Amino acid sequence: MKSPWSTRYSMNMQDYTGYAIGKLLALIEDPEIISLAGGLPSPRMFLQSELVEETQRCFSDRLERVMQYSTIRGEKDLIEAVIAFLRRDGIRVAPENVMITTSAQQGLDLAGRLFLDPGDAVVLERPTFGGAIAAFQMQRPEFLGVELTDDGLDIDRLETLLKRRDGAQSLPKFIYVVPDFQNPSGVTMGLDRRRALLDLAERFDVPVVEDSPYRTLRYRGADIPSLFALDQQRSGEHVIGIYTFSKLFCPGMRVGFTIGPPEVIERMTRIKEGGTLCTPKYNQDMCTAFLTRMDLDGYFARCREYYGAKMETLLEALTEQFPPHRGISWTRPEGGMFLWVSLPRTVDTRQFFHEALAFRVAFVPGEAFYAERHEHHHMRVNFSFPSRKQLGEAIRRLSDCLSARPSGEA
Amino acid sequence: MKSPWSTRYSMNMQDYTGYAIGKLLALIEDPEIISLAGGLPSPRMFLQSELVEETQRCFSDRLERVMQYSTIRGEKDLIEAVIAFLRRDGIRVAPENVMITTSAQQGLDLAGRLFLDPGDAVVLERPTFGGAIAAFQMQRPEFLGVELTDDGLDIDRLETLLKRRDGAQSLPKFIYVVPDFQNPSGVTMGLDRRRALLDLAERFDVPVVEDSPYRTLRYRGADIPSLFALDQQRSGEHVIGIYTFSKLFCPGMRVGFTIGPPEVIERMTRIKEGGTLCTPKYNQDMCTAFLTRMDLDGYFARCREYYGAKMETLLEALTEQFPPHRGISWTRPEGGMFLWVSLPRTVDTRQFFHEALAFRVAFVPGEAFYAERHEHHHMRVNFSFPSRKQLGEAIRRLSDCLSARPSGEA
Repeated sequence: MKSPWSTRYSMNMQDYTGYAIGKLLALIEDPEIISLAGGLPSPRMFLQSELVEETQRCFSDRLERVMQYSTIRGEKDLIEAVIAFLRRDGIRVAPENVMITTSAQQGLDLAGRLFLDPGDAVVLERPTFGGAIAAFQMQRPEFLGVELTDDGLDIDRLETLLKRRDGAQSLPKFIYVVPDFQNPSGVTMGLDRRRALLDLAERFDVPVVEDSPYRTLRYRGADIPSLFALDQQRSGEHVIGIYTFSKLFCPGMRVGFTIGPPEVIERMTRIKEGGTLCTPKYNQDMCTAFLTRMDLDGYFARCREYYGAKMETLLEALTEQFPPHRGISWTRPEGGMFLWVSLPRTVDTRQFFHEALAFRVAFVPGEAFYAERHEHHHMRVNFSFPSRKQLGEAIRRLSDCLSARPSGEA
Repeated sequence: MKSPWSTRYSMNMQDYTGYAIGKLLALIEDPEIISLAGGLPSPRMFLQSELVEETQRCFSDRLERVMQYSTIRGEKDLIEAVIAFLRRDGIRVAPENVMITTSAQQGLDLAGRLFLDPGDAVVLERPTFGGAIAAFQMQRPEFLGVELTDDGLDIDRLETLLKRRDGAQSLPKFIYVVPDFQNPSGVTMGLDRRRALLDLAERFDVPVVEDSPYRTLRYRGADIPSLFALDQQRSGEHVIGIYTFSKLFCPGMRVGFTIGPPEVIERMTRIKEGGTLCTPKYNQDMCTAFLTRMDLDGYFARCREYYGAKMETLLEALTEQFPPHRGISWTRPEGGMFLWVSLPRTVDTRQFFHEALAFRVAFVPGEAFYAERHEHHHMRVNFSFPSRKQLGEAIRRLSDCLSARPSGEA
């Protein structure tokens, strides 16, 4: 072409870089490196024989339909199974409140496309899930970050922010939160904060987008009702819930679901239609089988035991390697797959990432989880994929690497 | 919420209705209705036992990886298989020219998102594929329709249009065409027109988006090189090619691929990352198996014979039921799944659709295939899904329904 392709891109895409983590993971090729960087569930938890069995059943039952187009909203059986599954969690929805998506990532993209014009404000936790930043960024919004504390989103700061934006008539289009065992921090939003967040959503008339990939993975403490459930106990319809089977069942199906008011689901279904048309029936049917024909309680119990033990191992290793005088702190999650390590402010984890690779250990530099006012002395550490032995060894390597720094930090 | 949800939608989505056909198909529930409305391949052509066998092989070989995340761009094996498959068709691409998508619909959406700002112009054939309109419409472009003739896009009108837009410094961002057995018309763009289209693309510096779902389904005449192949014989890089396995293998996998200049593919991969992250590995692996381990030539020959016979049956029925004095014309496709019937201008097919349902026959009213200056006296007729007996009966019912009209048209 005469003019370069770069002159042809839409305004929204000219500076769009996607999700930063993908490029980073490509750097970790050496099998000697212990990676705490990924976000993968362990294949040891995959219901492999169950998937084989249900595939055989599905194919002998309805192979023709599996090979044909599926409905746009999603398979009726799966929507019914999702409704029953959510009822276990105190959520009561009808089919018109539910749509099936290509995992949670499509749910996030649908929320961004439905609500955000360039310049529209959206509230995010600081730090927050990088995939959500990547999805919303495609609409070029203004990101308003609100600090996360040990008990979740800082509600006082959110209130101050909303008051200010209300005065300026520029309220955010929605508030995006991951209340349970958040990626990247592992932090859980307490019950009082959840109620206070819904108070603010009602008072300022701003909807909440609740992303819930990890709710079943609780290793300590008692369940806290989801924002969606709490909102239903009040006036309702303030929350859109985004879910995925990636951490529930397995990532390979690429199936998730989004719940919300019927008119929002109807609008999102139109966007799904224009964007991907439908979700493959086989993949949906396997998720239906997971919810309706596999031993859910036994499976969740095994996951909690297996991942919980890994988390304890990691926390012990951190305590052992990083006594208080080293100036390193970390979160104490009650579930999920990640925790968040804060190094002294003098350590830039973008640089430290490469130093750590030389010590054959990898993590994700914290900057990937900020949409604005990036902080550079944090790291995200995954504990779901490495073995317990690897977790201990990885933290020793991190400690050695920090000790070896010329500046002698930490 | 205090304010209605409708006040919260983005500019792009406020009036967005999705793909018109979906709502229409929902009206056709009576099993006594012979539907010529869908766009489904026949399950009789599905490689069912092959899919079962390859699934077993895949699961015994790599079940763990099937259940895990896949790479964003697409599985290497599938990309290699696509490259070899395209080489059969005179196209030479490298891995950096290829990405895997959720079928062609995602390829269309990626093209729209990458290139179109609100108000940007895009050239479409008149009529054109409704799914492409649905994808591009999400960016609220200006649609510039150019008439289709029996030999494809009217190149003279396109030249006039481009000259005028060039003068006004508002050239389209791209030209979207379905050159082979177009949906909805069945029309194929002749070789001279393809060359002339590439001449215009070069001269006016406007890229072409070539959508090729049906190329292997040719029942008459000789293959014509794709625009992508012809462009590669010249200076190259003027064409982005959008493909799907939906008509090649089966729709149920929801897998397709897009080819183009490396920087375009890299940009589209970022958007895919933010929008759906990755395509399920199982579904990709089945498409790889289709391309590399199944009897492609035998399968394509069977499809050509099976669908070709249906097309001939339909053409014969039209000739028999609609002699010249009835003022009805139709296209004579050389392949694909559809033809286009034009009724007298006094017949509005939106109304006639409901009349036809009473005669237990359905089609798609032509208006669904116009993005601007809608015409209302056409219909799209599918011949891939109904049996030959049903096709003959359906055209008899259409003829009876037309004869029964109070105005006595046709």
